Amino acid sequence: MKVKFLGEIKTIRMIRKLVEKRNKEILVGIGDDCCVLKHGEILTTDSFLEGVHFDFRYFDYKTLGERITCATLSDIAAMAGKPILILVSLYLPKETKKEELIALYQGIEKISERFNCEVAGGDIVAAKKLGITLTALGKSEKPIRRNSARIGDKVFLTGYLGLAETGRIALLNSFPRNQFPKAISRHLRPLPRIFEALKLRKRMNSLIDTSDGLSTDLSHIAKESRVRIKIFWERLPVSEETRRLCREKKIDLANFLFSAGEDFELLFTAQGKIPKKVMGLKITEIGICEKGEGVFWEREGKEYPLLPTGYDHLTPRKYSL
Amino acid sequence: MKVKFLGEIKTIRMIRKLVEKRNKEILVGIGDDCCVLKHGEILTTDSFLEGVHFDFRYFDYKTLGERITCATLSDIAAMAGKPILILVSLYLPKETKKEELIALYQGIEKISERFNCEVAGGDIVAAKKLGITLTALGKSEKPIRRNSARIGDKVFLTGYLGLAETGRIALLNSFPRNQFPKAISRHLRPLPRIFEALKLRKRMNSLIDTSDGLSTDLSHIAKESRVRIKIFWERLPVSEETRRLCREKKIDLANFLFSAGEDFELLFTAQGKIPKKVMGLKITEIGICEKGEGVFWEREGKEYPLLPTGYDHLTPRKYSL
Repeated sequence: MKVKFLGEIKTIRMIRKLVEKRNKEILVGIGDDCCVLKHGEILTTDSFLEGVHFDFRYFDYKTLGERITCATLSDIAAMAGKPILILVSLYLPKETKKEELIALYQGIEKISERFNCEVAGGDIVAAKKLGITLTALGKSEKPIRRNSARIGDKVFLTGYLGLAETGRIALLNSFPRNQFPKAISRHLRPLPRIFEALKLRKRMNSLIDTSDGLSTDLSHIAKESRVRIKIFWERLPVSEETRRLCREKKIDLANFLFSAGEDFELLFTAQGKIPKKVMGLKITEIGICEKGEGVFWEREGKEYPLLPTGYDHLTPRKYSL
Repeated sequence: MKVKFLGEIKTIRMIRKLVEKRNKEILVGIGDDCCVLKHGEILTTDSFLEGVHFDFRYFDYKTLGERITCATLSDIAAMAGKPILILVSLYLPKETKKEELIALYQGIEKISERFNCEVAGGDIVAAKKLGITLTALGKSEKPIRRNSARIGDKVFLTGYLGLAETGRIALLNSFPRNQFPKAISRHLRPLPRIFEALKLRKRMNSLIDTSDGLSTDLSHIAKESRVRIKIFWERLPVSEETRRLCREKKIDLANFLFSAGEDFELLFTAQGKIPKKVMGLKITEIGICEKGEGVFWEREGKEYPLLPTGYDHLTPRKYSL
């Protein structure tokens, strides 16, 4: 069977089975946002490919450097960690200009500086299309995992749902940038919620960043924590720009909100009180953890199952653009 | 200017200037086989691309998994470290079969097991050609660097020079495998010299693994350590298979030996006595470190400069196949 029929989640599940645990320095291996070592070091890797993850029609090299650094460091935020370093592996077209490469690193540096992170190594190979793999290493006093949600926890989300994907589609369709300013900014420069996660970490039971789409990200928490999650449609934080885009492009809003990925917001569960804002960033209570399994959503008193329909790297998108 | 005219070494030098040191956890950043953290953690990344680093005409997926794991862990050996984990980032064609992916991981696992290393994470994106970026994390009690050769040190090399490249060319030309058994084995499965480096580490002053070709690897030690290195032609450990290949293909032996990369042997300098063998592996004294700069080779009493002619990922090979 070809991997495109298997899909990403099943492929990863298969890989987990092929891999043996054997080194005692490792506390958490495959299956969370980062792996975790004995002394709190956390490590993650993220790849970006021209034509799949970014499009030079609306990305310049500096913005690209900023975006991929944001996206990778978001995995460090998702474990409530502080970044230390990144490694940059480049699949570099030989025709790339020196100035383009400089701009790329300026973007990487700009975001790294903000989070006291340092580019500490990397690797270059010649390729037809630009591909970049970033590896980030950080440290977390108490890494917060996906598998530690408890029954009775409330479910919280920072920022706006689907905002980054709204920006991506607006750019792809060449809509006037000033009509979707917040959405475009979140797509191009999704600042990772590092500081916010550090502030909230003592109150969180489980944590993930929203990268694969809400339905998929929630299913990770539910499955790994062995809880049932129910979210409430009316509470979902949706920006006016997203509503407008879905109206104009005739995209079903629910489908869009549950599938749209790469917001890089914090999705977490907690027992106690959570403020409405952290460092100026909106926090919304969107659901609860119950006994059972699976993910569900409630709308006007009726409950529906919520299947993982987020972005699958090995199969095509579910909604048309 | 395009990066293909700049070349790999100048491109990396340019990148080093763009990147600022800022995190106090990092002892060694860009510029060695691994970066080094305060508590001895070492980290490296290596990318492999179909058509550039491997060729499915003579690689099956399992052997490929073995080879790339060997190559990446060699950077851990090059700092006299012990591996802990690797992360596997896949640029995966959608047409890849499930069985091929399983074989790839079986190869990765086979080598990992040998060195008590664990696959602890990774990432998959869909791509046209198979690309794999491996990141390895290890630990070294005393990381041995490129920049610590001293005047008066002797220069040593394990194994045979150019053996892996001999194997690669033999495979590429479909020569009978039984005529180049050692060379082909070294190309397909270049076991990293982890245990050997650990045994020798107290005697070494500086260390690198031979990956970019002897001339380039020596120039790294000479430049970073601010010494002049002279090697002696007559002492170079050349296997009979390599001599035969160069004769048959009419390749200039000196050019070949100085350029051929990916032997993944230990190239080190030391002051004291070094045994002729370590764990069954041949060690050859090939040169000396002197006051001055640059790399030179002596043949029949005459001295010639040795310019870095090793593999440059952004410009084509110097000798024809």
